[in-house]
Amino acid sequence: MIQTRLIPRTSSAYDSPLLIKTLLAQTLKYNPQREIIYRNIFRMNYFEFNCRVRRLANLFSNLGIKPGDMIGVMDWDSHRYLECFFAVPAYGAILHTINVRLSPAQILYTINHAEDKIILVHEDFAPILEAIKDKITADTKFIILSDKVYEDKNAEIIKTGFPSEGEYENLLSRQSELYEFPDFDENTWATTFYTTGTTGEPKGVYFSHRQLFMHTMGLISYFCGYRALPFSDQDVYMPLTPLFHVHAWGFPFVATMLNNKQVYPGRYEPDMLAKLLSEHQVTLSHCVPTILNMVINCETAKVTDLSKWKVLIGGSALTTGLAKAARTMGITVSAGYGMSETAPVLSVAHLNDAQQNLSEEEELSYRIKAGRITPFVELRIIDDAGNFLPHDGKSVGEIVGRGPWMTQGYFKDPENSEKLWGNGWLHTGDVGSIDEEYYLTISDRVKDVIKTGGEWVSSLDIENLLSQIEGVGEVAVVGLPDVRWGERPQALIVLKPAFLNILTPEMIKNKMQKDVESGKIKKWYVPDKIIFVTEIPKTSVGKIDKKKIRKELSE
Amino acid sequence: MIQTRLIPRTSSAYDSPLLIKTLLAQTLKYNPQREIIYRNIFRMNYFEFNCRVRRLANLFSNLGIKPGDMIGVMDWDSHRYLECFFAVPAYGAILHTINVRLSPAQILYTINHAEDKIILVHEDFAPILEAIKDKITADTKFIILSDKVYEDKNAEIIKTGFPSEGEYENLLSRQSELYEFPDFDENTWATTFYTTGTTGEPKGVYFSHRQLFMHTMGLISYFCGYRALPFSDQDVYMPLTPLFHVHAWGFPFVATMLNNKQVYPGRYEPDMLAKLLSEHQVTLSHCVPTILNMVINCETAKVTDLSKWKVLIGGSALTTGLAKAARTMGITVSAGYGMSETAPVLSVAHLNDAQQNLSEEEELSYRIKAGRITPFVELRIIDDAGNFLPHDGKSVGEIVGRGPWMTQGYFKDPENSEKLWGNGWLHTGDVGSIDEEYYLTISDRVKDVIKTGGEWVSSLDIENLLSQIEGVGEVAVVGLPDVRWGERPQALIVLKPAFLNILTPEMIKNKMQKDVESGKIKKWYVPDKIIFVTEIPKTSVGKIDKKKIRKELSE
Repeated sequence: MIQTRLIPRTSSAYDSPLLIKTLLAQTLKYNPQREIIYRNIFRMNYFEFNCRVRRLANLFSNLGIKPGDMIGVMDWDSHRYLECFFAVPAYGAILHTINVRLSPAQILYTINHAEDKIILVHEDFAPILEAIKDKITADTKFIILSDKVYEDKNAEIIKTGFPSEGEYENLLSRQSELYEFPDFDENTWATTFYTTGTTGEPKGVYFSHRQLFMHTMGLISYFCGYRALPFSDQDVYMPLTPLFHVHAWGFPFVATMLNNKQVYPGRYEPDMLAKLLSEHQVTLSHCVPTILNMVINCETAKVTDLSKWKVLIGGSALTTGLAKAARTMGITVSAGYGMSETAPVLSVAHLNDAQQNLSEEEELSYRIKAGRITPFVELRIIDDAGNFLPHDGKSVGEIVGRGPWMTQGYFKDPENSEKLWGNGWLHTGDVGSIDEEYYLTISDRVKDVIKTGGEWVSSLDIENLLSQIEGVGEVAVVGLPDVRWGERPQALIVLKPAFLNILTPEMIKNKMQKDVESGKIKKWYVPDKIIFVTEIPKTSVGKIDKKKIRKELSE
Repeated sequence: MIQTRLIPRTSSAYDSPLLIKTLLAQTLKYNPQREIIYRNIFRMNYFEFNCRVRRLANLFSNLGIKPGDMIGVMDWDSHRYLECFFAVPAYGAILHTINVRLSPAQILYTINHAEDKIILVHEDFAPILEAIKDKITADTKFIILSDKVYEDKNAEIIKTGFPSEGEYENLLSRQSELYEFPDFDENTWATTFYTTGTTGEPKGVYFSHRQLFMHTMGLISYFCGYRALPFSDQDVYMPLTPLFHVHAWGFPFVATMLNNKQVYPGRYEPDMLAKLLSEHQVTLSHCVPTILNMVINCETAKVTDLSKWKVLIGGSALTTGLAKAARTMGITVSAGYGMSETAPVLSVAHLNDAQQNLSEEEELSYRIKAGRITPFVELRIIDDAGNFLPHDGKSVGEIVGRGPWMTQGYFKDPENSEKLWGNGWLHTGDVGSIDEEYYLTISDRVKDVIKTGGEWVSSLDIENLLSQIEGVGEVAVVGLPDVRWGERPQALIVLKPAFLNILTPEMIKNKMQKDVESGKIKKWYVPDKIIFVTEIPKTSVGKIDKKKIRKELSE
């Protein structure tokens, strides 16, 4: 960096650190009477929200939580989760949003890896913890979350097979609502989330206060300033990607900062979601294509006016068919691109002046692309040698990125962290092109993640599972397009000679099915189709040629 | 600050410093074909703007400018000024926006105080420099700006009485348009501006890249996100406060970041301004009440549709009369509050949900107040002992502020810097109240600046001038309301006994008038009325009781 003339530090207010508590502080200025609603069983306004966030901080303090401690959450999408989004980082602790869709073994891995000091767990997920509680290595405390208390104050909470500090609402009610959140370094670690990528164990990405603050500013600039997905504080927001998944793509921070009315839906039951959308006149959501598909095809949606609903689609590609179906109902859909490592938003559909008067079909072709690069983010494409390729819409290479909200690596994983960052650029592992107008197209992946129902399933993981079944020799798994789930895995297997006329594909699927039932693996890990072959196609350097396999299986 | 767990620094992209060049970089992504226009004699789009900014950086490099050097500008409101807004800080140098309305002696003071290495000067202002050139202590270079070259490429530029490097357009045309702006510390000093406050010499406020970046984010959040002054990238922007005055309140940074179409008007001739507003369908401006009054009362305005025009008013209070007059023409007016020391915006009118269905009159009463506190800014009121007073709309005290865009002091003036910052709060010197809804009302000033035509004239300065006139004994100057200028000074004078029947008020005004003609003082320093008295009202501690004087003179 070149030497410049710095502003001398003359006051304690020099830094005005960019902290999560700063976003929270704005909520009292403009429309603090607006509501935050949970499943129609709980509602509060922003005044009350602020008080509850402070009560929660006092609870942490009374439980002996120290700045820098990790606090895990296992909950449905709720107002409680939102309270943790603010109270945990503002307290100086780190929010670990536990991915409840992982297998119990993987959840255990992340809890031990993160060293959670306390876990707030919804009673629906208590059985998972009961199954793994003896293997949790840290001296972890637990707080029980329950929906029942909102319907009946005296409702009996389940008895968990592990000791707990008590029930959330009961504990909050006993705290003071006065708590002054302290100032600290804006590079303080605020949140962490474990992502299941292409290799075995989940990897922890992490974000600082400054990074989440800047992500919020980037989205506000893009959506409110450039009108990419036109919204303002007057929109009504409901998340439709889980809050554990990179903080629901950062939107709860944006919506809270802007005092938006917010609706948290709990579980994703399509008719209930459609009912909430209608009842609260929700105007803004974000989700993976599978969820959009489920919502617009449910019975309630058929009798609901969704013409004011704007939905950002990410996680996997938005098909023209789904986009058209949504459009027919008056829904505004826009696709975007990002990843857990990038907090996550990197690009979102944006129509510039020249694209204002397109035909519906042409406009849709822009809306379903990976989008135009967001403010403050720099994306480049590089060839195998690391050279930058031109932004001509044709040159294809790996997408690399820089910007104010990229994870600095994977927690306690220097090897993969080094792979992630090369030459000062974050390597997305995705392959694509960028055109002259900063529009991004994703054409492939460097590794072969299978995106099914919004989940990123590692093909290597499935290969690993299959290869452990007696009789299975070589194996290759690829994702193939699926109307309902986006993609579904298919497997090629070379049997060991001794098992040649003994095993059938059905028998192998049944074995995996048992692991699904025992909770060892998730059901979407089971390939749709298993094909016995005598040889797995390889590249010239002996690697499995997945491109060729996909092509052959598609034909 | 408490100790927290920091994100480890693992990549060179860790910082993503918040730099002015980052705002510039966004302009190529979304609508780079939009135009920046100067007085209908020059127009370019954002592609060209980017090239020209880079040419300018190459020019600085070729002239031997180093990072940290001070670069002065004396220009009308032009595209050239905007180019300096970006090229100078992005180069690592410091932009000194010279207040061309100061007296030559004061301009000389600021040039020497800032140690300008180079000054870009419009030929209209060359005579000022000619008059003071021998007293400029730094080895300053000069570049001549001229409007003539846009109308006739071969136009002859004035011969200045000081050596110059040449004419701006001519010099730019010989530079490369390739220049990679470097990364550096975001706390690098970016701009400086000399403010004439209540004491003698102008005082230099200064802002870092980070501060200007955050000011831009604050305005975008407030105006685009919270719809305080609803605008987006689709607005057309024209400044009506000079670019030298705290970077035209920061709006050129906002408008450029958002790719807005921009119109720079040069000098402020009302009919020409109204013509530009109409021709380019300008939707967003900001100005002091005097300018708004001039524009809406000019002949052209009477036949112009200004119903899409939104104007932020600051500098002095917006009267109900002026607000109503503007409203009658369909103009949306909103008042705001800020000061040079605060970059400058601290508050802007904002109507919350409860204020959406007010009568026109009630709405106006909110629009003309000092406004609701902007995002990220904290304002408090304190009593004489420094205690915080409640935000009840009644308690009155000095307004103090904190936030990400406050000057850290006055350049080379530790004494006044210390006075400005007390207990970690910036002391505005203004007195007011804040209500429960974060609405600010300014009721008085701690010191007695007279705001006339958007200028802040120190009453102490005028007293000082008057007291130097032979025969003048004691003197007190206060500002009194004036329909045209907002306020105008009036003076009470106690004559020395020997001059009792010799001097008349007219004679004293004539003496000051001569100083105006010789350029020693500005014409608005001459009091409207001079009254001879036998005694100046004093407070109990012997200080001049200006409150009492104002009250008596008003009655």
